Amino acid sequence: MSPAGPPHGFQQDPGGVLYECLALGCWAPPPRALEPEPRPRPATPWPGRDGAGPCGREEKFCPPEGAGAPRSRQDGAGGVEARPAARPRLGRVEAVDGARRFANHRVLVEPAAAAGVAVMKFKNPPVNSLSLELLTEFVISLEKLENDKSFRGVILTSDHPGIFSAGLDLTEMCGRNPVHYAEYWKAVQELWLRLYLSNLVLVAAINGASPAGGCLMSLSCDYRIIADNPKYTIGLNETLLGIIAPFWFKDTLVNTVGHRTAERALQLGMLFPPAEALQVGMVDQVVPEDQVQSKALSVMAQWMAIPEHARQLTKSMMRKATADSLVKQREADIQNFVSFISRDSIQKSLHKYLEKLKQKKG
Amino acid sequence: MSPAGPPHGFQQDPGGVLYECLALGCWAPPPRALEPEPRPRPATPWPGRDGAGPCGREEKFCPPEGAGAPRSRQDGAGGVEARPAARPRLGRVEAVDGARRFANHRVLVEPAAAAGVAVMKFKNPPVNSLSLELLTEFVISLEKLENDKSFRGVILTSDHPGIFSAGLDLTEMCGRNPVHYAEYWKAVQELWLRLYLSNLVLVAAINGASPAGGCLMSLSCDYRIIADNPKYTIGLNETLLGIIAPFWFKDTLVNTVGHRTAERALQLGMLFPPAEALQVGMVDQVVPEDQVQSKALSVMAQWMAIPEHARQLTKSMMRKATADSLVKQREADIQNFVSFISRDSIQKSLHKYLEKLKQKKG
Amino acid sequence: MSPAGPPHGFQQDPGGVLYECLALGCWAPPPRALEPEPRPRPATPWPGRDGAGPCGREEKFCPPEGAGAPRSRQDGAGGVEARPAARPRLGRVEAVDGARRFANHRVLVEPAAAAGVAVMKFKNPPVNSLSLELLTEFVISLEKLENDKSFRGVILTSDHPGIFSAGLDLTEMCGRNPVHYAEYWKAVQELWLRLYLSNLVLVAAINGASPAGGCLMSLSCDYRIIADNPKYTIGLNETLLGIIAPFWFKDTLVNTVGHRTAERALQLGMLFPPAEALQVGMVDQVVPEDQVQSKALSVMAQWMAIPEHARQLTKSMMRKATADSLVKQREADIQNFVSFISRDSIQKSLHKYLEKLKQKKG
Repeated sequence: MSPAGPPHGFQQDPGGVLYECLALGCWAPPPRALEPEPRPRPATPWPGRDGAGPCGREEKFCPPEGAGAPRSRQDGAGGVEARPAARPRLGRVEAVDGARRFANHRVLVEPAAAAGVAVMKFKNPPVNSLSLELLTEFVISLEKLENDKSFRGVILTSDHPGIFSAGLDLTEMCGRNPVHYAEYWKAVQELWLRLYLSNLVLVAAINGASPAGGCLMSLSCDYRIIADNPKYTIGLNETLLGIIAPFWFKDTLVNTVGHRTAERALQLGMLFPPAEALQVGMVDQVVPEDQVQSKALSVMAQWMAIPEHARQLTKSMMRKATADSLVKQREADIQNFVSFISRDSIQKSLHKYLEKLKQKKG
Repeated sequence: MSPAGPPHGFQQDPGGVLYECLALGCWAPPPRALEPEPRPRPATPWPGRDGAGPCGREEKFCPPEGAGAPRSRQDGAGGVEARPAARPRLGRVEAVDGARRFANHRVLVEPAAAAGVAVMKFKNPPVNSLSLELLTEFVISLEKLENDKSFRGVILTSDHPGIFSAGLDLTEMCGRNPVHYAEYWKAVQELWLRLYLSNLVLVAAINGASPAGGCLMSLSCDYRIIADNPKYTIGLNETLLGIIAPFWFKDTLVNTVGHRTAERALQLGMLFPPAEALQVGMVDQVVPEDQVQSKALSVMAQWMAIPEHARQLTKSMMRKATADSLVKQREADIQNFVSFISRDSIQKSLHKYLEKLKQKKG
Repeated sequence: MSPAGPPHGFQQDPGGVLYECLALGCWAPPPRALEPEPRPRPATPWPGRDGAGPCGREEKFCPPEGAGAPRSRQDGAGGVEARPAARPRLGRVEAVDGARRFANHRVLVEPAAAAGVAVMKFKNPPVNSLSLELLTEFVISLEKLENDKSFRGVILTSDHPGIFSAGLDLTEMCGRNPVHYAEYWKAVQELWLRLYLSNLVLVAAINGASPAGGCLMSLSCDYRIIADNPKYTIGLNETLLGIIAPFWFKDTLVNTVGHRTAERALQLGMLFPPAEALQVGMVDQVVPEDQVQSKALSVMAQWMAIPEHARQLTKSMMRKATADSLVKQREADIQNFVSFISRDSIQKSLHKYLEKLKQKKG
């Protein structure tokens, strides 16, 4: 148990949703997202598909679909661009110093200093928010690594230390239409299912703050190393924004820190600095900032020494029931999100907040 | 893990149920309970109702019913008084120093020093045992606070430091009839369902010993602060009485301290002094005796700073499945209790024990 | 959380299953097991039975059956001897210093220094591997003690300090036929069900290394005391052998140390030295090597002081759901094991490993 005290990094105020959004201001994407000219859309790598089932671990590639059936696309007005029918070449392989390097827009994939290990770096400045673009590229890159027998482990980290990831991208949830919200939420689900059940060894090298969705990605790895910097807080702080972490965020946290710590942390939206995160079990190790990568590599070696098949099956035995509870109600979970985020009150708050931010930065 | 050793406050003896009851002598209600003239009955605030469903959190008020259907009331002989058909005015509001104060018999409800916070004080001397009267008043008072928008948090404490609550009232379980036992057990269930799923922030300010049902009430709050006095032990010590904590007591404990600690503590009937209670996670904080109330207020401020709706939904997400497992089998749980407590052997032991106590005090 | 580092007692090497088996070489049974003349078979104490249901705690004796139905026995070629139709006298009682002593081949049962307590000592040199013979005798001995009202507690320990038990016997899984594998696995299941739901108080006095199945037996007790010797490691290290702990091993571990610690320990096949085992909750106490037995007795006294019936029902309430999940799919679990262990690749690895060991020792 950590000592009682106000959640870190927040001032308390009864101002409601809008205030709470402002409290997260440092994580907000830049205001360009709300300007009329659209920012670069993700090069969507798949044609529309009908009726794809829920994506379990057996399926080899279940892309985050658009709005589901083509019919709903036709009547979806605004915000959803036409999609290329052909699969563009994403993640093309380049020779870099004799090693391979996937070149994506938002996620860098590089071979690590150890054989069989890749490093995936979030590169979505300023705060690595999980835009639909990033999510899409991330899932594709992870899929490629899963299918490439020469890789058995992946280290997740940020390309720009200071922020691991700020989590979900508020601009994907504001001023769009329900079709877009559904597409976005499906991509978030896909990210988690892919990470949580990955056959690869996943080590989070947390070199920056890791709130909300950033925390979820860390919790979905097999091992978490955080840099010893008190500014690098980690936690599921959704309540501070006036929103609720979905049940599968909650399940992932409970599996990591237990029911009581999760109950308190989720209700209070607690963000733990490294020492406290270690104490409650939210991370496995705290190391000096310049040793995060090297420590991640040595931990990775330990995990990769285990007979592969046995480790993978054991991981699945530990995690499958938790993942299945989302797989079984994936559509309902999407509908819940869409109806919540579409509320006028929520939209108004988000819009005002982003406007304010735009003025501030503009 | 606490160090091994005999449960605190108990001497060990193979004397069985009777002995075990004696071991809890300090918590027993005074002998008047067995005298021919009935003690004041709770002013039952509802007419008999048929077929009320299980009480979930959505229901606004589901009173602990008498014996269920009127038919069973008619043949219930002795111990169950006729009920007033009209709803008496309980918990009337008085003006006290410009603030409101609910005047009940067994539970004092006072506004706290902070806006939006009430203090509920058990006042059922000598040991705040959970009589049907107290349970009834407690549930009504809590209901009132839930419905009063000016209150968002409640601090539970004892009006007389030294004993938080001794738990269930043995005189409600001895020498009565099955109809009474059923009524009593339903009231105990109702207490727990109300507390565990309350929309209010509940902080337990544990200013005295808190065994059995007293511990359950503490565990059902959102946060537990205990006075640093080694006499103030807390735990579910039912096995020491030769009885078994019901499954929902167990679930509440497991959710708080984990499976292994609960398994050991429940089997051994362990009562933890404050330092050990903190170590296993049964309480969140240990503070000097004179700071229990002030600390409760500062913790309350922290919880009340969270956007209300998000906090409530998150709490429900964490707790609803546990509560539902009782809601779904509430009647069966009552029948289990009634058939257990009605056994001749149990009744004999309880009767002898209470007689002995009466002689001692008389 | 224990500090990161390689699992204790293992060197890491990507050599796969065979290598991993070799890593466990110290636990292997002596090579005689592979010689043409059969080693002494367990004196099977029951005739073949058809259609015995799953064994819950209510059943008084559900022996680990042979291969199930007689039909499958008839077509089972090699390795399964004819069975005596009559029940041999196992575990006969001798008078030793006025006390009783069951004389079995592989499990010694002796009265302890305290009334009502027995000591069961594994005596299957060199490493107390859980041969079918030992499992059979163990279950019978435990059953006798359960039915003997003069015993209420049992201390499990090793007859030869240094090794508590090396776990499952690899020679029972190599070069036999599916009928034998099924018989063996059913006996392993039976061991666990008997231990986990025993009405007796079970204290593990762990006086030696306790990997895999040895760990499972410890985890199934009510309390675990380990000798303070860093060589005495404990853990479910199945992945290091290239095999997977069955789900009920996993459930037992999760109930003891929680989800996250179990997830990591199982995937890495971690073997914890005493201090770390205590830290993660895998054992309850670490004591000097010469105090393991005396401490076990004093802990036993504590548990036996609790009213028996209440303790037993509370234990069942904590454990029954976990046991039921195996009882409900016991046959499927056997078939899973048989099909896994019958694979050519697994058999080849085990055979090579045991041949190598034979040459080494011969």
